[in-house]
Amino acid sequence: MMNGETSRPPALGFSSDNIAGASPEVAQALVKHSSGQAGPYGTDELTAQVKRKFCEIFERDVEVLLVPTGTAANALCLSAMTPPWGNIYCHPASHINNDECGAPEFFSNGAKLMTVDGPAAKLDIVRLRERTREKVGDVHTTQPACVSITQATEVGSIYTLDEIAAIGDVCKSSSLGLHMDGSRFANALVSLGCSPAEMTWKAGVDALSFGATKNGVLAAEAIVLFNTSLATELSYRRKRAGHLSSKMRFLSAQIDAYLTDDLWLRNARKANAAAQRLAQGLEGLGGVEVLGGTEANILFCRLDSAMIDALLKAGFGFYHDRWGPNVVRFVTSFATTAEDVDHLLNQVRLAADRTQER
Amino acid sequence: MMNGETSRPPALGFSSDNIAGASPEVAQALVKHSSGQAGPYGTDELTAQVKRKFCEIFERDVEVLLVPTGTAANALCLSAMTPPWGNIYCHPASHINNDECGAPEFFSNGAKLMTVDGPAAKLDIVRLRERTREKVGDVHTTQPACVSITQATEVGSIYTLDEIAAIGDVCKSSSLGLHMDGSRFANALVSLGCSPAEMTWKAGVDALSFGATKNGVLAAEAIVLFNTSLATELSYRRKRAGHLSSKMRFLSAQIDAYLTDDLWLRNARKANAAAQRLAQGLEGLGGVEVLGGTEANILFCRLDSAMIDALLKAGFGFYHDRWGPNVVRFVTSFATTAEDVDHLLNQVRLAADRTQER
Amino acid sequence: MMNGETSRPPALGFSSDNIAGASPEVAQALVKHSSGQAGPYGTDELTAQVKRKFCEIFERDVEVLLVPTGTAANALCLSAMTPPWGNIYCHPASHINNDECGAPEFFSNGAKLMTVDGPAAKLDIVRLRERTREKVGDVHTTQPACVSITQATEVGSIYTLDEIAAIGDVCKSSSLGLHMDGSRFANALVSLGCSPAEMTWKAGVDALSFGATKNGVLAAEAIVLFNTSLATELSYRRKRAGHLSSKMRFLSAQIDAYLTDDLWLRNARKANAAAQRLAQGLEGLGGVEVLGGTEANILFCRLDSAMIDALLKAGFGFYHDRWGPNVVRFVTSFATTAEDVDHLLNQVRLAADRTQER
Amino acid sequence: MMNGETSRPPALGFSSDNIAGASPEVAQALVKHSSGQAGPYGTDELTAQVKRKFCEIFERDVEVLLVPTGTAANALCLSAMTPPWGNIYCHPASHINNDECGAPEFFSNGAKLMTVDGPAAKLDIVRLRERTREKVGDVHTTQPACVSITQATEVGSIYTLDEIAAIGDVCKSSSLGLHMDGSRFANALVSLGCSPAEMTWKAGVDALSFGATKNGVLAAEAIVLFNTSLATELSYRRKRAGHLSSKMRFLSAQIDAYLTDDLWLRNARKANAAAQRLAQGLEGLGGVEVLGGTEANILFCRLDSAMIDALLKAGFGFYHDRWGPNVVRFVTSFATTAEDVDHLLNQVRLAADRTQER
Repeated sequence: MMNGETSRPPALGFSSDNIAGASPEVAQALVKHSSGQAGPYGTDELTAQVKRKFCEIFERDVEVLLVPTGTAANALCLSAMTPPWGNIYCHPASHINNDECGAPEFFSNGAKLMTVDGPAAKLDIVRLRERTREKVGDVHTTQPACVSITQATEVGSIYTLDEIAAIGDVCKSSSLGLHMDGSRFANALVSLGCSPAEMTWKAGVDALSFGATKNGVLAAEAIVLFNTSLATELSYRRKRAGHLSSKMRFLSAQIDAYLTDDLWLRNARKANAAAQRLAQGLEGLGGVEVLGGTEANILFCRLDSAMIDALLKAGFGFYHDRWGPNVVRFVTSFATTAEDVDHLLNQVRLAADRTQER
Repeated sequence: MMNGETSRPPALGFSSDNIAGASPEVAQALVKHSSGQAGPYGTDELTAQVKRKFCEIFERDVEVLLVPTGTAANALCLSAMTPPWGNIYCHPASHINNDECGAPEFFSNGAKLMTVDGPAAKLDIVRLRERTREKVGDVHTTQPACVSITQATEVGSIYTLDEIAAIGDVCKSSSLGLHMDGSRFANALVSLGCSPAEMTWKAGVDALSFGATKNGVLAAEAIVLFNTSLATELSYRRKRAGHLSSKMRFLSAQIDAYLTDDLWLRNARKANAAAQRLAQGLEGLGGVEVLGGTEANILFCRLDSAMIDALLKAGFGFYHDRWGPNVVRFVTSFATTAEDVDHLLNQVRLAADRTQER
Repeated sequence: MMNGETSRPPALGFSSDNIAGASPEVAQALVKHSSGQAGPYGTDELTAQVKRKFCEIFERDVEVLLVPTGTAANALCLSAMTPPWGNIYCHPASHINNDECGAPEFFSNGAKLMTVDGPAAKLDIVRLRERTREKVGDVHTTQPACVSITQATEVGSIYTLDEIAAIGDVCKSSSLGLHMDGSRFANALVSLGCSPAEMTWKAGVDALSFGATKNGVLAAEAIVLFNTSLATELSYRRKRAGHLSSKMRFLSAQIDAYLTDDLWLRNARKANAAAQRLAQGLEGLGGVEVLGGTEANILFCRLDSAMIDALLKAGFGFYHDRWGPNVVRFVTSFATTAEDVDHLLNQVRLAADRTQER
Repeated sequence: MMNGETSRPPALGFSSDNIAGASPEVAQALVKHSSGQAGPYGTDELTAQVKRKFCEIFERDVEVLLVPTGTAANALCLSAMTPPWGNIYCHPASHINNDECGAPEFFSNGAKLMTVDGPAAKLDIVRLRERTREKVGDVHTTQPACVSITQATEVGSIYTLDEIAAIGDVCKSSSLGLHMDGSRFANALVSLGCSPAEMTWKAGVDALSFGATKNGVLAAEAIVLFNTSLATELSYRRKRAGHLSSKMRFLSAQIDAYLTDDLWLRNARKANAAAQRLAQGLEGLGGVEVLGGTEANILFCRLDSAMIDALLKAGFGFYHDRWGPNVVRFVTSFATTAEDVDHLLNQVRLAADRTQER
């Protein structure tokens, strides 16, 4: 399969990075580790090695808990950072607010998501400061507990280091925890070109959902704790939520392969580059308006209705008209090749030409 | 690695079936399905195929939800079968009562496990009938909601079909749901020599945690619903608990391989046969008393303290002195070879000889 | 005390109706019923009588559960009308959203309050219809479950019968439950001049928090169920939440006295009349702007800062600058006399004069 | 009751102390405080006074939260002393285990009641020590968190000071909280003849449900915290559970009257004396066997079936055949007069005579 890759027909799916498969290195690691005995529940050597790798990557001591999904990572982190009567501040467009069927509320036993708006799916720092200072100590109201930001965001934008640090300062000044939903952590990191430490704990992040599934892994995410005092509580919460894998080595094998030889960074660069190639190809085409910058692996544009129809007819997969009339979202992944992008661009151009003719 | 298997040193671990790896067929299936695009969240073809296979296996229409752990399967099933003020009747030795850190309580929002004792980790039917009829309708007390049995049990015993049917009758007569924790479902099935249908819905089971991880899979379990009306609720509960895998095909690929060419039954037969071989080898040895029948892949025996020490010193892994003084538990798996068993038996005989000499 | 009432100094508190005491008839009922034996937990005759009275008042069969607080009434009702993954639609200004410290989330085990804005603290029917039709059946998102409206609202406005019926139609068309927070039910009812039936079940209300504490009772509220199928579930939920009073007769005695000889309606008329008197007195005063209509017992106005200071200095109690700069809220109650209002008006006039002089 | 008391027919109810009404002093206090304005939610002077009285009674600084029911007091205390994955150790016969419809599980978000048996409904100290040391730190198992004892117990027995201190030592040595369900606190206290401090914090109690409703109050209980660090958390939990009364003065007025002039102790002495009188009268009667000592206001005895029938026929109310065949429970209260007891005794004697004749 790996050999035959070049001759496969172009992939038509641009709906999300979760439709991609896994990197060959990751799949092979599972085969490699599938024989022989190993300690269960994370007592194996591979799991210990994964923790060491994270300590290196983040240039400090961290605690690591592997879980099978991003929703689990997010909800577990948040549940350890808020009492049931706490407020979790997040953007209205955030995954935890819209796409987890109330997982944060479930895991936290009823904490309250307080949305704080802002452009490009990023929290507005002024509003955040205001909101987190309201009604503190008032027994009639749920209380400020923590803040959650998504990096890269759900629309593909990226918080700058200064922006994260500013949010970190708000959190510190009010003793709030800061969680980062990093389901596209690597895409943001290679885009910013900074170190993992700079993008997280150096800017005030306490707990990170380190995403891997969207970027080349089968099903594994890492909770990385910079506030290591949360680890004990989370170990009980993880078990209680059914997220402690008995054959933990299989989660560890995925993450280990993902971190080896910078696979995670290489994959993210591929995904981002595909989105860049797509953006450049779309720029200047008639009937196409690229919206916002393409900072990670997500691109928004506005297309004529006829073009949308033509692309759908040609078999392409993508979301449209969710964020506004004629607004189309294209998502690339580590598996998106230049050929895939060029095939899409060709079809867009064809559709554009046809639209122009009319 | 598969070729070198015969020459590997004997495996020393007999502590649990969760220290084994995965069947090669399962690992290869992951490689096979790791490239190409597929619909996320269970919208892929492979997931549909898995459902069809379960319908065939159980000779009827069933609903299937795949999840990554047995704790998730159990707790999700139970949460859909009890209100928060309900009673879940189970054996004191059950996994849900002892080994899930309160997952049933968490998922059900505070339902109550009511333990009903009985020999060999099996519910006593008379007591069960009594307990489930107590205080019905009394607003001061949590109310009978469902029953959970483990097949094979946590001590390796197996409910007969009549016993399951009797429990099913109790449930039906009081409108209680019946859940089966089948983390070792295959081991019980091949031991009884009956059909999957007979061991479940024909005896009154409404929801089954169909175990696979202990029997050759990396990390995948199937919730199989005979009461298919629970499926919609469970689909929300699964997502909300972080157990809806985005790249579902990787759970499906495991289960699909597990069900293909009767791998699940072949693996279970291997595990049971290894336990049988061990039991036969231990019978009649001085200083060894085999306890109870060895119906599945778990064997209990009583060993002299000196023998326990010698085995531990030789590197063997197993639990002892948990269920009584000098009581030892050996667990075999699909990966346990005759050589592994014989190696253990040799060491036991050596230790027995040395003990006799003194 | 009742005799000496006329000679007491004017009451200075206008911050809320919860600073008032209780009607003498209610307090005397407690004395009357404090001797002798009675069945506990609502098995007494007085509790049965209260239910009968509610059936008469609402002109149909209803189920009634008495509880000690309005928060309990609201949260219990809502918990029976939503699964943990459900949406409860309410106004951003609603008590359940702001002033119950997450009680709905706690009682419902993590359901989500979805705010739907609208003028005068009333739900906008168009937005409500839209919101309740979004993402139905999408497993990634919490699901529409019920709607909660407050009558009279938190700002003292009142839904017309047509407005309630329109909301009732939205609920019916989407199979959503409709809850009414009636902590000021009587104030709204006498203002509209309609029947209790018209303002509730005839307009589609399924469950009502029938307020009494703000209107002359010590501490008692009634959950009145028009959808009587919720009663059994709620009886367990009430007990489980610690809201089933063992000496229920003392809750029943309060409500019984409250319903006797139309005390509840007389009290509400007094409170509303006091607010009207205040509104009329304030109209046309310099430095005073009455905001909105005064439909129940709550009045909003804008006062010069100097006037606010002068009133506070004179010992008056009220909230200000919460809803906007210089915005003042005055709340009257059944215990507010014409003298109390006139005393306040005098002080406002004095302050106004002084302000003018400068 | 006050004037006509002597001429009223004897009270026939001996089923529980919750069928009694309220002391006249308590009812009158409600009348007294029902007029005039007072700060809501416990900001009134009377509530402050109640706190001061508790500090005096317990000879130290305490935090006090008033709530309307004993179930609320118990469940709130426990919820602040255990994480959701914690164990609450209690007797199988305890109210929290049997009679609160899972309130501890609800308030704690799914903690686990671990029953520890012992004679006379009192925890066996040896078993308690063992159980609380099992599986500490094992992530698969819910963890030891706190212990709850009932004083006087549900069967009317009383822990000695030494017994409480021994339990306190177990708790201290394992860092577990110690809760006392004192729904019959006063009955135990006057029976032991010790100080409130000795029976609680001096013996290691952290949080007390100070019962009042069973002993002369309408509906009010006090959470008394010796571990005052729990107070902030509990203030949010109380509000969130709907147990923060807006017109708090009415709870405070009841408790204030209850504590004034030792009413609480006088009432308890009356109730205990009535039980003593009953015990003495029953001793030596044919067909009657008094079971255990009568330490508080609960008496167990064994009666001939014919006697039970005769008493029921005569209109007496009591529970029987719940704790064993022919076992009868009589509960007295502050309102039980010598005449009430003598009337019961007369009827027992009559029944005994008739039984003998046969």
